[in-house]
Amino acid sequence: MTIATVDLKDQAGKARTAAAELAASSEDARNAFLHDLSAALYDRCGEVLKANASDLSAAQRAGLGEHVIERMMLDDERINGMADAVRAIARLPDPIGVTLDETARPNGLRIQRITVPLGVIGVIYESRPNVTVDIASLCLKSSNSVILRGGKEALETNRALAGIIADSLPAGGLPRDAVQFVASTDRSLVREMLGMKDEIDLIVPRGSAELVRFVAENAAMPAVTGGIGVCHTYVDAAADLDAAKDIVINAKVQRPTVCNALDTVLVHSDAADSFLPALSREFGNYGVEMRCDPRALSILRSDGNGAIRKAAAEEDFGTEFLDLIAAVKVVDGLGQALEHIDKYGSGHSEAIITEDSETAESFLARVDAAAVFVNASTRFNDGGEFGLGAEVAISTNKLHARGPMGLRELTSYKWLVRGNGHVRT
Amino acid sequence: MTIATVDLKDQAGKARTAAAELAASSEDARNAFLHDLSAALYDRCGEVLKANASDLSAAQRAGLGEHVIERMMLDDERINGMADAVRAIARLPDPIGVTLDETARPNGLRIQRITVPLGVIGVIYESRPNVTVDIASLCLKSSNSVILRGGKEALETNRALAGIIADSLPAGGLPRDAVQFVASTDRSLVREMLGMKDEIDLIVPRGSAELVRFVAENAAMPAVTGGIGVCHTYVDAAADLDAAKDIVINAKVQRPTVCNALDTVLVHSDAADSFLPALSREFGNYGVEMRCDPRALSILRSDGNGAIRKAAAEEDFGTEFLDLIAAVKVVDGLGQALEHIDKYGSGHSEAIITEDSETAESFLARVDAAAVFVNASTRFNDGGEFGLGAEVAISTNKLHARGPMGLRELTSYKWLVRGNGHVRT
Repeated sequence: MTIATVDLKDQAGKARTAAAELAASSEDARNAFLHDLSAALYDRCGEVLKANASDLSAAQRAGLGEHVIERMMLDDERINGMADAVRAIARLPDPIGVTLDETARPNGLRIQRITVPLGVIGVIYESRPNVTVDIASLCLKSSNSVILRGGKEALETNRALAGIIADSLPAGGLPRDAVQFVASTDRSLVREMLGMKDEIDLIVPRGSAELVRFVAENAAMPAVTGGIGVCHTYVDAAADLDAAKDIVINAKVQRPTVCNALDTVLVHSDAADSFLPALSREFGNYGVEMRCDPRALSILRSDGNGAIRKAAAEEDFGTEFLDLIAAVKVVDGLGQALEHIDKYGSGHSEAIITEDSETAESFLARVDAAAVFVNASTRFNDGGEFGLGAEVAISTNKLHARGPMGLRELTSYKWLVRGNGHVRT
Repeated sequence: MTIATVDLKDQAGKARTAAAELAASSEDARNAFLHDLSAALYDRCGEVLKANASDLSAAQRAGLGEHVIERMMLDDERINGMADAVRAIARLPDPIGVTLDETARPNGLRIQRITVPLGVIGVIYESRPNVTVDIASLCLKSSNSVILRGGKEALETNRALAGIIADSLPAGGLPRDAVQFVASTDRSLVREMLGMKDEIDLIVPRGSAELVRFVAENAAMPAVTGGIGVCHTYVDAAADLDAAKDIVINAKVQRPTVCNALDTVLVHSDAADSFLPALSREFGNYGVEMRCDPRALSILRSDGNGAIRKAAAEEDFGTEFLDLIAAVKVVDGLGQALEHIDKYGSGHSEAIITEDSETAESFLARVDAAAVFVNASTRFNDGGEFGLGAEVAISTNKLHARGPMGLRELTSYKWLVRGNGHVRT
């Protein structure tokens, strides 16, 4: 395997030039590309699997962990999944050229605000090769050029996928340079990419919390900060405790390794005596370990059954576990719950379980997070579940985009002003 | 005059705490504050003028230029103008709690997206003290805390104004800490402020292009980039040349020192012979100097009347003159005009003058700028003229806000999700 010398400036310049062409492309052209890409992924499946096999054996030789190998491994089913996702993106409405508002001023000037592409989007991601296809499709659907910098473990797989994407661009009459694949595992290229603020309009990191933080701290251009969630569910005194148990279990165990999974359960003291033993038994069934504050621990002490439980350390509150572990704390009411969330939450996904609509509305109004839930699992904080059709990331930024980012969040806008000789007085 | 020791971290912490209180404030409370402030500015006019006199005499002693002194000077009329602006802001619709969209998903989850404050806004500005009142009012109207760092020339004036603002906050039951005035001229505080990305959600620079660039390059948090405009007007072959002349004159001379004033006129070669001599005479009447490319110069050579003209240097194209100077270039059609704008424009305000609607629409579609005009002066790129009611800045960023920023652009949003026991499968 030869590592090509990579000229990132040159690649970014080509992406910028292609972006100007893309901005003038039609919805039909972009969808023709996506349909061609979807078909090519089925047709050229063997090519991708061969590249993937090469990455896999290198990973095994390097002694990489099982979970890394699981994430990078492709098979027919996963490639078909990618192809289906591309077709689904083709079916979404065109995010470009949408009129956001339109007014006629008293002086007769007609003012319109329409969506336009951002320009060039840089993506830095880790071992899941589906990101290559997923993000490139979303960027192209929204008329943006994309620069792809994947993880070193999946280099050959990503190279094969990027080649297939580039080969499909002509089917829509789109410029091949619109997709730039950084064909090197040189770590210094990430730093170089993060400094290119005149060349790249937005950086999207996809991967671990560590990657997201690195990008947020080092990017000279705007970067999406997302994928880090310290998520609370507050079980109020007025909760339906059966529903509460189901929701807490779902939020914790349905997919514990993702950012919108539950980390801490806050339980109202009036509900704790009856709720915590029931929750403990159910957590026990799923192998969830409970890290309890003194009050929760004392309630559970007398109960011989249920989950493994320990005294919580201070750092358990505010930790994103990404594992079958939950911190548990008893609070004396909404005020204490809000204080705790304010102190320890990451502004991602927060939930209350209550039948009291006043308490629910108060929680919705006062929690400062991307998504706030009443009587539902935090696992619903997701572009697909919110009806966006596709998801770029779940942002915890407050500027530009917050929460699930779909195609709309890959656009900017411009103001179009039509007059007939208007001058300002 | 004692310079107090400033603890910026402490001030920012107080602003953050106040922001949480503000987020729960009602529209009535915020408007009550604004009405009280407006009245207090009339009532305490003498206090402000006294502080201003002290700044003015210090400025004169320091030998500051006439234009600095003109900008910082207040009188009854200017203070009344501030008070009127505050009342106008009070009358604008509440930007907070606005439902942006609302859907019910097939599974019954009800999903709503509503506007919320950004949190803490930092403002770094130069010698115009009206910014103190203007920006603080916009920030408070949108439930944001604000940290004000004004220019050293107007320290006492700004201190007096900030005091009046803080004194009006209780009229709305709002926390005094919501407005933090940085009462020191120590330059290192600007750098410290730009590093406080956990404390400040958005930085707004208001002043010279140099200040805006400094903030853009050094801010660790998102910053508004605006106020820098290299603005073109392209006079097409199909232009109404009388209208074109009026528009170009207006764009150049109505207020030459602002960012949306014209810098370069591009003239189609078919129109140049008749347009340029007429323009030159009119520019001559207003004292505008023309810096011409060779073709424009040769057309004007035979014309004894009109404006001062010189051969343009390469750097005249792409310069924001902020003065009675215009660069002039003859082009062979729309394509060359677009290429020139693409190369030299700053993405602020660009205009075409033409009666050909196809050419007009092509220009609108292809120019990548915050605002694109047909048959109108670029001077209209302004929050008030666009109907936003007030203006924070004119952004040339593509993320979050582009073009005139009003109250809406001082908001974020959050997703509210209401279920009845929903779990994800």
